Amino acid sequence: MASVNVTGDDANLRITIIGAGTIGLSLAALHLTYLKTPSNLTIVDVRPDLESHILRSLPAFLPQSLHPCVPQVKLASSVPAAVKDSGIVQECGPENLAFKSALWSEVEEHAPPDALFWTSTSGIPASRQNAHMRDPSRLIVVHPFNPPHILPLLEIVPSPQTSQSVIDRTVEFLRRRGREPVLLQKEITGFVAGRLAWVLLREAIHLVDQGIVTVEQLDTILETSMGPRWAYAGPFKSFHAGGGPGGLEGLLKNVGPTVQACWDDAGQVNIGGAWEAKVFGQVREAYGALDLEERDVANRRVLEVVQEVKKDTGSSVD
Amino acid sequence: MASVNVTGDDANLRITIIGAGTIGLSLAALHLTYLKTPSNLTIVDVRPDLESHILRSLPAFLPQSLHPCVPQVKLASSVPAAVKDSGIVQECGPENLAFKSALWSEVEEHAPPDALFWTSTSGIPASRQNAHMRDPSRLIVVHPFNPPHILPLLEIVPSPQTSQSVIDRTVEFLRRRGREPVLLQKEITGFVAGRLAWVLLREAIHLVDQGIVTVEQLDTILETSMGPRWAYAGPFKSFHAGGGPGGLEGLLKNVGPTVQACWDDAGQVNIGGAWEAKVFGQVREAYGALDLEERDVANRRVLEVVQEVKKDTGSSVD
Repeated sequence: MASVNVTGDDANLRITIIGAGTIGLSLAALHLTYLKTPSNLTIVDVRPDLESHILRSLPAFLPQSLHPCVPQVKLASSVPAAVKDSGIVQECGPENLAFKSALWSEVEEHAPPDALFWTSTSGIPASRQNAHMRDPSRLIVVHPFNPPHILPLLEIVPSPQTSQSVIDRTVEFLRRRGREPVLLQKEITGFVAGRLAWVLLREAIHLVDQGIVTVEQLDTILETSMGPRWAYAGPFKSFHAGGGPGGLEGLLKNVGPTVQACWDDAGQVNIGGAWEAKVFGQVREAYGALDLEERDVANRRVLEVVQEVKKDTGSSVD
Repeated sequence: MASVNVTGDDANLRITIIGAGTIGLSLAALHLTYLKTPSNLTIVDVRPDLESHILRSLPAFLPQSLHPCVPQVKLASSVPAAVKDSGIVQECGPENLAFKSALWSEVEEHAPPDALFWTSTSGIPASRQNAHMRDPSRLIVVHPFNPPHILPLLEIVPSPQTSQSVIDRTVEFLRRRGREPVLLQKEITGFVAGRLAWVLLREAIHLVDQGIVTVEQLDTILETSMGPRWAYAGPFKSFHAGGGPGGLEGLLKNVGPTVQACWDDAGQVNIGGAWEAKVFGQVREAYGALDLEERDVANRRVLEVVQEVKKDTGSSVD
């Protein structure tokens, strides 16, 4: 049986990914770049064409040198055998409480006693998914940001029942994988990255809906201002730098009335609203089917150059 | 007298910057990289140490090769002589309606009849600043994003009175300067980039105030997810790519309930609220005085690599 001590010999660890959608494949690719033995990775999915799907889709997430690993990855259509030797079970299934809740009961019954249980959910907290577990302290949210084989962020969101050992082993393992795990202090709807992205998207939808800008103009605005800015320094650090000697406090003293006016005037569109036809139509017309390979190269290069600049000037690099 | 035909020989144009703060200096640096004759740039400010301030501060915004230009820039403490030969008068003064309104009356009296009048305001629309102008059709908002000698975005916001010719000449001139002017269809509080940034900051403040994450964790989250993502593709394009074959519409069908829950639960902090001590304190402790040179190098490199990737894969590059 493979070691399940994830604080030790990670390279020989067995990992099971549940769900062969985009996030599952991207995380599978991330693990494959570290595992010594590709057959230590198992992908579970009920789709009947799982093998051909993996052979066709997984290589796109991997560098050329790792394409030969793909046929060695283990595939399974049911959980018990797939998790029985696993050190990590990482769930990337549908956003459905009944599915996840039933899954964890089954996983818990068959996985080794010290295996880590990670859910990639973007919205269903561990405290709801763990309701039927014998030992709810084992489950933790490890929320990736698409595409997670490239973007380093993982939001680590324990439930009130999650054990400190599960938190620590999860964070330490992901750091050793070159990832950026950020531990949230409490569960909160949508976690942090999602809340920030969705609140900005809501205002973006409002501005397109009001005819102030088009979808493409709005994207151009982000790509030529906040995107490059926040790739280097998040909003607090950026605004603090922009505030001169007074920092963030000085900045908000100067522009506070405008900021408050923007907040008071923020759009309040809702899912299912009349904006959908206009916005979805503009998005389809502007972008159609997109080149994900170019996106992946660009995201990777942006992360690299920021690290290079920080290294060159001696800043601390994570 | 220098040409004021900004659609023609830009290199011999005379430009006057009003206000020697951070934005004024950054825009001065941008213009100096294009002007054949540094003395065609004039900087106006009432501060008594203007000359020593410019000699000390402006070089930081310029490549080494342009440092010898700095002493040749013309300086002035009053408007009339400074604008009389100008093709562009670009205001970067305090965010104060009385100041701006009085300024434009004075500028209009002394500047050439076809000079462009640009205000860098982040919140006072041209339709309010132009109230006392003889010809309100001449004024337009050209809102930069800090630091504007590096970040390409300029939001172009005409008032209902702004002439089409002023709009067209402004957009065309900025495109020739390698900038990304985005024309808003209507005036709106805080324009677009500001509204998006402030609405995200409001949620960020709320999450720190609630103790979910620290200021530094929140910045790390942006730097390792949305920042690199949006440096390449804005939110509509990114979410459309992340939605698979269903695009943005498919994505919001899947995660719509979580998105709506985030919107319903979004923080409603206000300027002057009790969060300020906690957030300003964390920001000061985390960042102190920041290295703007490293920021500038990083922002520039991020913009460059995105353009390189788009060129390599044959995407359209603006």
